[in-house]
Amino acid sequence: MNFLEEKIATDGRVYEGNVLKIDNFLNHQIDIDVMRQIACEFKRRFKGVQVDKVLTIEASGIAIAVMLANMYDVPVVFAKKGAAVTNTDDKYISQAYSFTHKKMNNVFVSRPYLTKGEKILIVDDFLADGKAFGALIDIVNQAGGEVVGLGVAVEKGQQNGGRDLREAGYRLESIAIIDEMDDKTNTIKFREQR
Amino acid sequence: MNFLEEKIATDGRVYEGNVLKIDNFLNHQIDIDVMRQIACEFKRRFKGVQVDKVLTIEASGIAIAVMLANMYDVPVVFAKKGAAVTNTDDKYISQAYSFTHKKMNNVFVSRPYLTKGEKILIVDDFLADGKAFGALIDIVNQAGGEVVGLGVAVEKGQQNGGRDLREAGYRLESIAIIDEMDDKTNTIKFREQR
Repeated sequence: MNFLEEKIATDGRVYEGNVLKIDNFLNHQIDIDVMRQIACEFKRRFKGVQVDKVLTIEASGIAIAVMLANMYDVPVVFAKKGAAVTNTDDKYISQAYSFTHKKMNNVFVSRPYLTKGEKILIVDDFLADGKAFGALIDIVNQAGGEVVGLGVAVEKGQQNGGRDLREAGYRLESIAIIDEMDDKTNTIKFREQR
Repeated sequence: MNFLEEKIATDGRVYEGNVLKIDNFLNHQIDIDVMRQIACEFKRRFKGVQVDKVLTIEASGIAIAVMLANMYDVPVVFAKKGAAVTNTDDKYISQAYSFTHKKMNNVFVSRPYLTKGEKILIVDDFLADGKAFGALIDIVNQAGGEVVGLGVAVEKGQQNGGRDLREAGYRLESIAIIDEMDDKTNTIKFREQR
């Protein structure tokens, strides 16, 4: 097991309905050692890839994006969520369904912060059905940028987001991929990665 | 002028109604050099202060909190916002009015992530009327923690949040304090700090 799989196995809690709770170290309280190591791991896996900017979506993606951008020495852009997008002249907008809040969210980035030809690495904490990544990719495409990679801390492999993104030809790096969870025994089975 | 005042003077835009827009480097696109320097500046100003945890509120406070926690080597906790707090057994809850969204927000932190006696440094990107800081202080007090300092990148000195917090005895460090803005000339007057 790698560091993140170990941390999930030790500190994660599995609940009914395929819910994994790791907000004690990833997305409410943040273990800074884990966060540093996530950034180092992405840097290693994307070795040789040119990155002009790191893109994520508020809120919990920001921690990973900032730690990673600090290593690349490039800017972060975080997409904002909200229904309240009235003026679209100055924004790239896409949509993503939020399972947490059970509604469609607008996802948007102000136009000046993504430009044509930029090489964009997109990161987030969780990947399940891939709707948030889909919206971010859509926004990069609208801006004429190039998605050079997708990095996620935890992929829920039982849902199809990761598979779909890989089949679409994106380079997706997931530090931990969960293939099975059992809330009765609080056990988690990770996918073997080379 | 310090580094942040210079950056604001160069890249900030003043709009009618006392609005300062610096989302090109602080809270939508993030200039990682500025962010690093903000963290270093807080570290210097709070020299000798023991910090067990850095607390902030989603979303844009997370970047500053993570960079600073990385230097202190302590965890971050970010408070969440939302109306959808049904179960209060497991959370510390307070309220803050959001000027951005023109409504009262619940602000909450899961109970296990703040504990009695912890020394908490609270940071955020903006301080205007101080409602968000007030809610975070309230939450730390509920948990029996100790607020050892408040750090904010940009204080809007025309509003009373900063004054009120200092009068209440909190040690508040604001890297840039704006005393006047003029949207006609796009000029910003900063408060002199020793």
